Amino acid sequence: MGDYRKMWSDLNMDLEKHDVLCAVLPELYGSVYLNQENRPEGMNYFNFVVSEVHGLRIEELANTKTEGNKVVGTFCVFVPDEIILAAKATSVGLCGGSQFWIEDGEKVLPRNLCPLVKAIVGAKLSATCPYFQSCDMLVGETTCDGKKKAWEILGEHVPIHVMDLPQMKRERDYESWREEIKLFINKVEELTGNKITVESLKESIALANQKRRALKRLYDLRKNIPSPISGLDSLLISQIAFYDDPERFIAKVNELCDELDERVKTQNPDERKRILITGTPMAIPNWKMHSIIEELNAQVVVEETCTGTRYFENEVSSNGDTLEDLIKNLADRYLKINCACFTPNDGRAQDIIKYAGEYKVDGVIYYNLSFCHTYSVEYKKVEDELKKNDIPVLFIETDYSSEDSGQMKTRVEAFLEMI
Amino acid sequence: MGDYRKMWSDLNMDLEKHDVLCAVLPELYGSVYLNQENRPEGMNYFNFVVSEVHGLRIEELANTKTEGNKVVGTFCVFVPDEIILAAKATSVGLCGGSQFWIEDGEKVLPRNLCPLVKAIVGAKLSATCPYFQSCDMLVGETTCDGKKKAWEILGEHVPIHVMDLPQMKRERDYESWREEIKLFINKVEELTGNKITVESLKESIALANQKRRALKRLYDLRKNIPSPISGLDSLLISQIAFYDDPERFIAKVNELCDELDERVKTQNPDERKRILITGTPMAIPNWKMHSIIEELNAQVVVEETCTGTRYFENEVSSNGDTLEDLIKNLADRYLKINCACFTPNDGRAQDIIKYAGEYKVDGVIYYNLSFCHTYSVEYKKVEDELKKNDIPVLFIETDYSSEDSGQMKTRVEAFLEMI
Repeated sequence: MGDYRKMWSDLNMDLEKHDVLCAVLPELYGSVYLNQENRPEGMNYFNFVVSEVHGLRIEELANTKTEGNKVVGTFCVFVPDEIILAAKATSVGLCGGSQFWIEDGEKVLPRNLCPLVKAIVGAKLSATCPYFQSCDMLVGETTCDGKKKAWEILGEHVPIHVMDLPQMKRERDYESWREEIKLFINKVEELTGNKITVESLKESIALANQKRRALKRLYDLRKNIPSPISGLDSLLISQIAFYDDPERFIAKVNELCDELDERVKTQNPDERKRILITGTPMAIPNWKMHSIIEELNAQVVVEETCTGTRYFENEVSSNGDTLEDLIKNLADRYLKINCACFTPNDGRAQDIIKYAGEYKVDGVIYYNLSFCHTYSVEYKKVEDELKKNDIPVLFIETDYSSEDSGQMKTRVEAFLEMI
Repeated sequence: MGDYRKMWSDLNMDLEKHDVLCAVLPELYGSVYLNQENRPEGMNYFNFVVSEVHGLRIEELANTKTEGNKVVGTFCVFVPDEIILAAKATSVGLCGGSQFWIEDGEKVLPRNLCPLVKAIVGAKLSATCPYFQSCDMLVGETTCDGKKKAWEILGEHVPIHVMDLPQMKRERDYESWREEIKLFINKVEELTGNKITVESLKESIALANQKRRALKRLYDLRKNIPSPISGLDSLLISQIAFYDDPERFIAKVNELCDELDERVKTQNPDERKRILITGTPMAIPNWKMHSIIEELNAQVVVEETCTGTRYFENEVSSNGDTLEDLIKNLADRYLKINCACFTPNDGRAQDIIKYAGEYKVDGVIYYNLSFCHTYSVEYKKVEDELKKNDIPVLFIETDYSSEDSGQMKTRVEAFLEMI
């Protein structure tokens, strides 16, 4: 690991506070990840990415900025990366998954708020996240009350463009989302000085689809019994997808999948319980739920979350010869995501049931970040549908602290015994 | 009070459970309201309305239904009553303010949710609210995550139409809101079989404006030192505005104001602290905050809430000769409401500062129903603006239970001493 202190200092980071954060991560990663047995060789790349999470990748961002390119921070799988990439900018996902940032977030936000939103604001206010510090612009969206209002506070510190995601999926909402994508294009063009063309957009659509395909390939491999890769490792790859260089990431995921292809040829079925996780996103380094489940000798085989299937399912069509066509394709693909922020959102329960079959799961854990209203209220409907289909489900609401880990473990253990 | 048991039974109410509810209200009302000294004579009408809250008014709704008219339930000041009235239907506000309904709400909703939403769902599921039982259709809106998702649960029990309120106030959001009003017109016409015409809409606009003007007159009287009416009584009138017959309500409020006009001529200024309440709505019978403040010998003189100024400020213009014109007027008026559900919502802090001057207030109490994210996150911005203007502010987060009343009283008392 190089000496990045000058770079961090140039990013106006709080170096002292950042040192505290840097001291926590390796220990956590070591105990959760490096203790796993029989990990694929291909995970070495991702270990390296984590070890350089505030180093090499930030240096790459600094280099692209030196070349005159821009860095754009996002917080949601509804924000189309294709637009950012088509303007030769770099997109980084900024959702915070560390308890470290909660305290600073709570200085300006109520405690009764989802930890992800508090961590986002805390990461910026504490000046300890070099990704935040590298961004020329942030992109918010109106997916939930907490985020929607938090943008106003973040906006006091850094330029932010907010996309108004429709709350329903009627024809007029598709039109509205196309309009929002156009406004986003204008904004990104203005920021970067680069015009988005049919050609550049087709290229970025192809790149984003390749990334989706690589992740889909990884997830398809998890359908094997046993999955040739742990839920923890898959989750990490999904988390890294949000900020790594897309081309390198695609190559490395495919290399890993080549290895996993070989692995499944020689492995024998086992008896471990197979778990589907559904619910709210798990931003890096939030590995709490997976870690508890897999310590209990069960396997997480699929995540119906924004750091799972919602991120990569459905490709964007590149049919059409005009920007208008491509914008329509983008809107169509993105509005297929079944997020609880929509009303109604009946497609989500159907997705879970479909995945439960495809991934041959024994049970579903509904993972809810504390105070996330859209997902917690939607639980009732999902539970009803799963029960109708005889799929066992456990609701777990938690935050980023480790206080409730013991209780969570007890509940998961009881659930695993029951299913 | 007549015998309404047959009527309630015809409404498929749970009579036994409803008896429990009926037993609670008079005692609460007696201790909070009837113990006040020197109340205006004009409050007798409103006392009567409360005593008949589940009786005479429900009988009126039953009678209008017998005549073939419809009853439409609403939950938000953004839903334009004018449309409902123009189709000869009756509009009733259904927001629940009683702890009585929380338990039933929590059977299908998470506990970590705003009490107003839990009470709404609990009131329907327990079949103890005759207003709910009288409704032919409900109208929801996308103002917050909790309500937005709760409509899906309510929709399993009663037809509900959801209006998608924009999250911002750009020109395109005004257009979008006009579209939503048109969809609402179609829905109401379909329900009632009555076509909404320029003439009928102009009539209902005039009626709704008269109601706004009556409430504005009442609020203007509260600008006197002292206010000739208690905050508790004003709050009750605002609450009753949502379900009483509009013409009778307007007449009774104006009668009361005539009396108050006389009262202010002869009264002497006093030293009581004058409080502005801002924040989340107080649905009937939620009188907790006002009751604590006024027991401490301060006066609530204005509420910047949905059961306050947001309900009646700004009239709808009746200019124009087409439905299109009138729909535009409606959209323009309704989108002037500065609700925390918008991002940004800078106008709200400015409203509070303006009212603080007009009503000569000594301090502001920011009243937040537990787990209401939009208002709790917006607090920081409002607090900053108020501090810049040297207006003292106290943040109180609470629910419908009485458990924290003692603590609230202590905090309010300290605040009153400080200002």
